[in-house]
Amino acid sequence: MKQAQRPKYFSPAADLASRILELLSRYRTKEGTLTEISNALGASKATCLRVLKTLVWHRLVRYDERTRRYSLGIQSVVVGIRAEENIDYLLQLRPYLREAAEKTDMTAVLVQQVSYDRMMYVAKQESDSRARVTVSVGNRFPITGVSYGKWLLAYASAEEREAVLAEGLRQHTEATVTDLDDYRAQLKAIRDAGVLISREEYVPGICAVSCPVLDHEGRFLGVIAVLGFASACDDDMLASVVETMREIGQRYSQGGGDVDRV
Amino acid sequence: MKQAQRPKYFSPAADLASRILELLSRYRTKEGTLTEISNALGASKATCLRVLKTLVWHRLVRYDERTRRYSLGIQSVVVGIRAEENIDYLLQLRPYLREAAEKTDMTAVLVQQVSYDRMMYVAKQESDSRARVTVSVGNRFPITGVSYGKWLLAYASAEEREAVLAEGLRQHTEATVTDLDDYRAQLKAIRDAGVLISREEYVPGICAVSCPVLDHEGRFLGVIAVLGFASACDDDMLASVVETMREIGQRYSQGGGDVDRV
Repeated sequence: MKQAQRPKYFSPAADLASRILELLSRYRTKEGTLTEISNALGASKATCLRVLKTLVWHRLVRYDERTRRYSLGIQSVVVGIRAEENIDYLLQLRPYLREAAEKTDMTAVLVQQVSYDRMMYVAKQESDSRARVTVSVGNRFPITGVSYGKWLLAYASAEEREAVLAEGLRQHTEATVTDLDDYRAQLKAIRDAGVLISREEYVPGICAVSCPVLDHEGRFLGVIAVLGFASACDDDMLASVVETMREIGQRYSQGGGDVDRV
Repeated sequence: MKQAQRPKYFSPAADLASRILELLSRYRTKEGTLTEISNALGASKATCLRVLKTLVWHRLVRYDERTRRYSLGIQSVVVGIRAEENIDYLLQLRPYLREAAEKTDMTAVLVQQVSYDRMMYVAKQESDSRARVTVSVGNRFPITGVSYGKWLLAYASAEEREAVLAEGLRQHTEATVTDLDDYRAQLKAIRDAGVLISREEYVPGICAVSCPVLDHEGRFLGVIAVLGFASACDDDMLASVVETMREIGQRYSQGGGDVDRV
């Protein structure tokens, strides 16, 4: 699990470059002036300008002279396409996401840890259904806030788990579990069950059914989930979704290393 | 047009971070050890390690402890997806690429300038045809080597054009135009014609039909081209492709700014 501390080997300018790319990849801050960006990142304007102009030179960022705003550039698209091609499990997981969306008629997502205390949607597949939950790839949420985090903690070492739980559990909705003992008991139970149903624990009105995906060596990779409107999720419907997700999760995790690259 | 000189405001570490992301986004160097990466980029191992570990911390790069190799990480996928969503003209151009591929049964590409002397495939749409040309997004080629560069130079200022032509024209195949006066005359002719046919000028056996795409203010954005095998491109077939491409290029360039974001 990624630590909160910066690594032993560290470059402040590379750190700022990374944080600029991350800032511009969020919907609300997808473009900004030098002042806005340096304020948002707590960096001096002079340092920010040097890093921004260097990123513009490499076309990872583009600068609009008319609006004086920076945003992601064409080279970022290329890096992203190549990253997706090169991260084998993403290509391997795509057909499973499509299958989950088709069979459940819900929105299927892949969720992974992206910083020491955050998880993120890294891929999605929406169903053809008219009334569907829409999510945005790149959205982040606190590990202990969202139900997917339970899988991460269920597969983490005791030390990693307790480090996260030491910060306590915040109440997001009426359904959020905030008692640490109850939470720990649930972590144990879901590993045995293989599937987790979450009803409105993080966002009111949204229901999620999730399962872990493991690589061919049994290491935790992330979580596949399907999302739907709680109002549409009755017990019969959920029972069928649970079976589908359990089967998909097990099939991927058992064959994960052997699936042909498509 | 981007200059060869580094910008006035410049950060060496952000430059190295950018070059690492670019290096890892090329097929042949998609993963590498610290030694391989520092050698490829002419950077010291100590500097390279600091920048790499910082990029790993941000998950733009990932490190495989078993193989001791670095490759692009999950955050790069997210940055790429957001960049594509945010660069409006890419979303607007996608339907045109699909239409070009469907109507011509050839591989459609969007080509843009990516450094002072290189152009790159930034998007593609392959046809359903069995025998199709396969290209890789991210592939780069010299502006004066590939036929698409003629569009870039035809729309560049005289000063920019002559700066590129000052380096001379290199022979890539028997069909490459290497006489500067002939080349300049062709630049003028293609602006009037609106479409360019290139037969095996850069890669033997490959034929391309291209047209420029302009933004709603008439500025040159890039080139749409369709690629096919020269052996399959007879005059009748090309005449039909030329009409299709001229029509698509004009339609995009006239309505470019007004197309709804999809």
